[in-house]
Amino acid sequence: MNIVLLSGGSGKRLWPLSNDIRSKQFIKIFKTETGSYESMVQRVYRQIKKTDSDAKITIATSKTQVSSIHNQLGEGVGISVEPCRRDTFPAIALATAYLHDVQGVSEEESVVVCPVDPYVEEDYFRALKALAEQADKGEANLVLMGIAPTYPSEKYGYIIPKSTEPVSDVATFKEKPDEETAKQYIAQGALWNGGVFAYKLKYVLNKAHELIDFTDYEDLFSKYDTLTKISFDYAVVEKESKIQVMRFAGQWKDLGTWNTLTEAMSDNAIGEAIMNDTCTGVNIINELNVPILAMGLHDVVISASPEGILVSDKEQSSYIKPYVDKIDQQIMFAEKSWGSFRVLDVEEKSLTIKVTLNEGHSMNYHSHKNRDEVWVVISGKGKTVVDGMEQEIAVGDVVTMQAGCRHTVFAETELQLIEVQLGEEINVYDKQKFPLE
Amino acid sequence: MNIVLLSGGSGKRLWPLSNDIRSKQFIKIFKTETGSYESMVQRVYRQIKKTDSDAKITIATSKTQVSSIHNQLGEGVGISVEPCRRDTFPAIALATAYLHDVQGVSEEESVVVCPVDPYVEEDYFRALKALAEQADKGEANLVLMGIAPTYPSEKYGYIIPKSTEPVSDVATFKEKPDEETAKQYIAQGALWNGGVFAYKLKYVLNKAHELIDFTDYEDLFSKYDTLTKISFDYAVVEKESKIQVMRFAGQWKDLGTWNTLTEAMSDNAIGEAIMNDTCTGVNIINELNVPILAMGLHDVVISASPEGILVSDKEQSSYIKPYVDKIDQQIMFAEKSWGSFRVLDVEEKSLTIKVTLNEGHSMNYHSHKNRDEVWVVISGKGKTVVDGMEQEIAVGDVVTMQAGCRHTVFAETELQLIEVQLGEEINVYDKQKFPLE
Repeated sequence: MNIVLLSGGSGKRLWPLSNDIRSKQFIKIFKTETGSYESMVQRVYRQIKKTDSDAKITIATSKTQVSSIHNQLGEGVGISVEPCRRDTFPAIALATAYLHDVQGVSEEESVVVCPVDPYVEEDYFRALKALAEQADKGEANLVLMGIAPTYPSEKYGYIIPKSTEPVSDVATFKEKPDEETAKQYIAQGALWNGGVFAYKLKYVLNKAHELIDFTDYEDLFSKYDTLTKISFDYAVVEKESKIQVMRFAGQWKDLGTWNTLTEAMSDNAIGEAIMNDTCTGVNIINELNVPILAMGLHDVVISASPEGILVSDKEQSSYIKPYVDKIDQQIMFAEKSWGSFRVLDVEEKSLTIKVTLNEGHSMNYHSHKNRDEVWVVISGKGKTVVDGMEQEIAVGDVVTMQAGCRHTVFAETELQLIEVQLGEEINVYDKQKFPLE
Repeated sequence: MNIVLLSGGSGKRLWPLSNDIRSKQFIKIFKTETGSYESMVQRVYRQIKKTDSDAKITIATSKTQVSSIHNQLGEGVGISVEPCRRDTFPAIALATAYLHDVQGVSEEESVVVCPVDPYVEEDYFRALKALAEQADKGEANLVLMGIAPTYPSEKYGYIIPKSTEPVSDVATFKEKPDEETAKQYIAQGALWNGGVFAYKLKYVLNKAHELIDFTDYEDLFSKYDTLTKISFDYAVVEKESKIQVMRFAGQWKDLGTWNTLTEAMSDNAIGEAIMNDTCTGVNIINELNVPILAMGLHDVVISASPEGILVSDKEQSSYIKPYVDKIDQQIMFAEKSWGSFRVLDVEEKSLTIKVTLNEGHSMNYHSHKNRDEVWVVISGKGKTVVDGMEQEIAVGDVVTMQAGCRHTVFAETELQLIEVQLGEEINVYDKQKFPLE
């Protein structure tokens, strides 16, 4: 099975765990059988591999997520990187061209596209496989998954099928309705449109060539920023007459708010948390290294990360966005392809961070115009290159780097550094990369 | 006026702002006229000085609070340091001997003793002065303040006066009653015993000599750990027949729990905090550098410090102690006589802290057996002494110190350091102090 996972934007509805550079799908919140926690991306990836160990998985996403994906899934996963955000049609066209030109998938093979973030079980992935097999048959150009509604939701578009058969032609599509209208749709046998569908590769490749002037993947990639923003639904789905829907009645949850996310938590608390026995319906997700004590609360979610603390009535948590939009908090932690960092201290003319490099990884070779830096190795070993000079480093070693000096560090084992940045103007844009000499 | 302020123990009821080394009276929570915040100690000290600029103030407290007191009140304040905790009679005896032998207060002068942590206004301090003047008259050996009850409290002992005059002989004392009994006491004209009283210095000094075998302050100090724990009420007050009570009807609040403390807050929030408009009765005290967002909460207190986060229904917050007792969190910040420190990062074999030295101050000259240290100066200037070698330091300078090496730093201006501690066994006990060569 060829599967394209659409990994969407930043999303602040799960603040303080999601932020401008960490989307909700990277939050490690789901308990695995071994007792550790995995993110939505890791969960979906593991589930696909379990259902179809040969599945060719491509993640269509923006540049900002590439580090997190490599960090959470390893280097092996295929990534179709969108140079900028241009909505779902360009993104799916680019991923399709990537499958064809980079991964060598033939035009006759089927491709399944689905969002990376639904909370689903294995039956969902068997349904994806069935979707691909239905597309293989060539009875229709597009085969959509239609999710059996569990309530008259106002959040989803609806698909009206022509029949009640498991696979049916589509009669029509309906925009997000109000609750009353949703009830009427459901009475007619309508299904939710979860943005999941399958097609033969050549179908979308031809559509792309019809609508965009490009030669191949590389060409499309290079002119991506000139493309018009347009959704796949609008550009393709709603205009297609040879289109089927396949019914899916298993679990399918959209965990986009704290209220829905906490419903999927198997533990009431993740991280250091204490609740007294007068608490009911309380969930705590604590990424800090200090305890949270909750007393006498009801139906409240508490979430703490290095970027902030949310304490919200669960119902109210759906209305978080405008408040979070106003918060102008600098990024306090981030996953990178080489490891991660966390801000420890912010002063006017200094910034102290903790850097963790994964074994075998290194930073880019780079310099800064306006700041000096000091590294103190606190665990592991490796080597630094500073202005071309290589040096072994181990615990306790100190490396001082003046502004302008080129530097990198390579981790032989997992390596942790305290990095002190010093200067009048400290910001993330002050970085020049160089090839290693 | 000679006034002894009893500054009590650690108290965990205001966790996470109070901890083993920071008592509630040092939390800066009260807004001043200039918009900054002051602690209970600072508030009381300022109020006394305003009422009586010549007041001789002595703070009776344990060793652990000396740094905080100097940090918050300056070096000028008198401190009677209890070498260990021995309840109120030995503490008051020691403070009285300190006033006589160290401060040179005559035996005929009156002394007022009161706890450091009631939330009061200026009329209270005028009442303290009146209490001292009443003691000066010598009509009684002890003059107590009797606080006019505002409700039938079960938390306080009661004083039953013989008459309803402003100053009356004491008929009897009553232990903390239940609510019904309290109502009966109040109907009889009973007053709360807030532990505030005045006496002529010689009275308590003589009592001390009766009960303890000692020569002078130094001798008493040196044998303090051998003394029996006994309260002043039990050892003196309840046995005294020449005893008066002076009525006080002004504001007197005991801010010992989050519930009562938040009532005295003039702002709903201190520190970075956002509340949506569905919040009612919410107080936020945030000592972290990241925002707290509260949504849809009612009658809840949220408090965050480097040591933890409390989210509690206000009523429930009175029951915090057993939960906090179970938390085994290392000290994450502390005030020292020379400034303050904050723990930034804890790893198995390293500890990274931020040290702030106040202008003109320095640490002890000291060494560690089991850890190396690295200092990176992030602001200010000063000089270090390392194994006898003096060196000027400024922003960006790095000082490395091997285990065993003697070191200190002197701050010419306010000076901030990032200190990285490295070793197999890092703990606060690994410290040897030396005189500076």
